[in-house]
Amino acid sequence: MPATDTVRIRLPDDRNYEIRIGSGLLDAHASWQGLPKGGAAVIVSNETIAPLYAQRLREQLLSVYARVDLVVLADGEQHKGWASLNQICDHLLSEALDRKTVLFALGGGVIGDMTGFAAAIYMRGVPFVQVPTTLLAQVDSSVGGKTAINHPLGKNMIGAFYQPERVIADLDTLDSLPDRELRAGLAEIIKYGPIADAGFLDWIETNLDALLARDKAALAHAVRRSCEIKADVVGQDEREQGLRAILNFGHTIGHAIEAGMGYGEWLHGEAVACGMVLAADLSHRMGLMPADFVERLRRLVERAELPVQPPRLGAERYLQLMRVDKKAEAGAIRFVLIEALGRAGLHAVPDERIVETLTTHGAA
Amino acid sequence: MPATDTVRIRLPDDRNYEIRIGSGLLDAHASWQGLPKGGAAVIVSNETIAPLYAQRLREQLLSVYARVDLVVLADGEQHKGWASLNQICDHLLSEALDRKTVLFALGGGVIGDMTGFAAAIYMRGVPFVQVPTTLLAQVDSSVGGKTAINHPLGKNMIGAFYQPERVIADLDTLDSLPDRELRAGLAEIIKYGPIADAGFLDWIETNLDALLARDKAALAHAVRRSCEIKADVVGQDEREQGLRAILNFGHTIGHAIEAGMGYGEWLHGEAVACGMVLAADLSHRMGLMPADFVERLRRLVERAELPVQPPRLGAERYLQLMRVDKKAEAGAIRFVLIEALGRAGLHAVPDERIVETLTTHGAA
Repeated sequence: MPATDTVRIRLPDDRNYEIRIGSGLLDAHASWQGLPKGGAAVIVSNETIAPLYAQRLREQLLSVYARVDLVVLADGEQHKGWASLNQICDHLLSEALDRKTVLFALGGGVIGDMTGFAAAIYMRGVPFVQVPTTLLAQVDSSVGGKTAINHPLGKNMIGAFYQPERVIADLDTLDSLPDRELRAGLAEIIKYGPIADAGFLDWIETNLDALLARDKAALAHAVRRSCEIKADVVGQDEREQGLRAILNFGHTIGHAIEAGMGYGEWLHGEAVACGMVLAADLSHRMGLMPADFVERLRRLVERAELPVQPPRLGAERYLQLMRVDKKAEAGAIRFVLIEALGRAGLHAVPDERIVETLTTHGAA
Repeated sequence: MPATDTVRIRLPDDRNYEIRIGSGLLDAHASWQGLPKGGAAVIVSNETIAPLYAQRLREQLLSVYARVDLVVLADGEQHKGWASLNQICDHLLSEALDRKTVLFALGGGVIGDMTGFAAAIYMRGVPFVQVPTTLLAQVDSSVGGKTAINHPLGKNMIGAFYQPERVIADLDTLDSLPDRELRAGLAEIIKYGPIADAGFLDWIETNLDALLARDKAALAHAVRRSCEIKADVVGQDEREQGLRAILNFGHTIGHAIEAGMGYGEWLHGEAVACGMVLAADLSHRMGLMPADFVERLRRLVERAELPVQPPRLGAERYLQLMRVDKKAEAGAIRFVLIEALGRAGLHAVPDERIVETLTTHGAA
C-alpha cells in the first residue's frame, strides 16, 4: 500500500472530516470503511469519468452497501444547472431511496458541486463523499463544503454550505486527466502561495516542471499543502463571513470571464489564472504590492501555460458581470487583493481602477 | 398597541429567534426593527395574499430598506415546485441583488416553505423573515426552519433546514382566511395536544367553538401554546434526528393522501387531520392507547369540520406512497404513535396492521 497523506478539516459540532491523498486509494478497502451506514449508495459521475472509474468504485462500495446505483450526467460546466440537479433527485425519488442513502461524487468540480448540492437538499440532507478525479477538484472544490449549481445569470449562484463525510483524492486518477485540465488545476495550486504561504509560492516556482510532467511526489506535495491551507481557512470561517473570501483570489474577474464567454468556453482554472494576474495588477494599483510581484505572478501563470490575456468583453460588460457576482455587495466591487506575499484581504476597488486594469490588459 | 406575545426559539450557535404573536403587528413599526440590515428587501407572496397585505408590509419595510421588491407567485400547493422556486431566484439574480438581501415570506405554508428554501440556497444563504397569514403557517410551518418544495414523486422531498430571523404572526391577517383554511390550521393545533400536552387537548375541546368563531383571545392562546410546544421540540432537535419527528403525528398518512389525490386537492391540514385519526387507530392496534382515545380524537376532528374519512386509494397505493415518504427508511414503515396522552414516539408498524387500519376506515 503506498503512503497516504491525511489532512483533517476541523469544524464546529464534531463535523470534522478527513481528506485522504495518495495513490491507489480508489481500490483500497480502507478508503470506504467507517462511513455512514445506509442501505444504498449512489455514485454520481459524468459520461467521461464513469467509464473509467465507476465500476471499480462500485465494486468497493458493494462490500459496504447492499445496493450501489450509478447516475451518469452530461459532462461539462454548461450542464451544471437545474436539469442535471433534477436528474439526481429524480433518480433518488423514483427509486424511493431514503434519507440514509449516501451519495458519492466521482468526478471533477462540476460533479462534486452538483452532487454535494443534491445531497444538501434531498430530504433536507443526506450524507455524501467526495471522490475528486481532477487536480482542481482535489486541491480546491472537493474540500470545504461549498456546493452549488450555476444560473444563466451567474456562476454558483444557487447552492449551500454542506460538508462531505470524507474526501478520497486518488492521485492515480490524475493519469487520465487531459493536459489542459491539469494546468487548470495548477491555477488553484498557484493561488495558495500569494494568499497564504510565500514559501509554497517559491516551491511551486521550483517544482513547476515536475508538476507539469505529473511527477507523483510533486503532485502529492502540492495537493497536500493546498488542502492544508484550505482546511485551515475553512476551519476558521466555514460560511465565508470573512477570512474564507481570500480563497476567491482571482475569482471575481475569473467568474466574469466564465460567464461572459459562456460557461464551458474557458475552464474555471484558466479563468482564475487570468483573474489572478489582473487581481495582482489591482493589488499594485491600490498601492499594496510592488510591480515586480505582478510580473512574477504573470510569469508563473505563463510558464504553467495558462492564459494571462483576458477576453475583450469591454469594460462595461465586465463591471456588470462582476456586480452580479456574490462578492459585489451594494456599492464598489470588492476584490481579494494581495497585501503581502502570503497575506490577502478583501478591498473595495473604485470602478476607475478596475477599468485601468482591464484596459491595460486589453480587456476593455 | 394591543398585547404581543413573544415565543423564543433557542438554537445552538446563537441562532435564537423570536415568534411575535398579536393583533396589528403588520403595521407596527417595532415588528420590522432590529432585523439584518441590507440594501434590499424582497417580499415573496402569492396572487391571493399580495393584494391584501403586500402594500402595507412594503410601506413598513421602506422605513428600513432602501429598496423593497415584490415577487408574486401563483397560489396553491400544486405550484410549490421548481418553477416557482426559480421565479424567486430569477428575480433576485436579474435584479443583481446581493447576499445581504432579506426575503420576507408573506403568506401561508407554501409561500413560507418556498421562500425559506430560496433564502437557504440563494448565494448559499441569505436572511429571511416569516410573515405567516394563515393559521396553519402561524402554528406550524413558519416556525422551526423546515423549508422545501414538492417533487412530483413526493411532498417536501427537496429542501433544507434553514431558520428565519424572526416570525411575525399578525392575528388580524386571519380575518381574511377562508373557513376551510381556518379549519385546516386547527388540525395542526389539535395535533399538539396528544403529542405533548394533555391539558392543551382539554383546552381545545372546551374552546373549539370560540376558535371556529375566530375569537381573537382564543386564537391568541392557541397560536402561542402551539408555538411554545413547537419551539421546545425544535430547540431540542433542530434537524429531526429523533424527538422532532413527533411533530409529524398524522403526517405519514396525511402526505400519502395529499400525494395520492394530487397536491392541492386536499389541504395539508385536512390530510393531517384524517391522518391523525388513522394514526390514533394504529396507536390503539399497536396496544399503546385505549379505544376511547381513538373515538375522542375522531370526534374532535369531526367537530372541527375536518375529514375523518380517507379517500379510497387502495391499500397497495397507500403503502407505496408512504414508503417513499422520508420517514420510511428501509424496512417497515414508521409512524408517530401516541404512547400516552401528551407523549408520542416513532414506531415501526407491520404492513398488516396498516392494512387493517386502512380497511376499517374504507381507504383500502
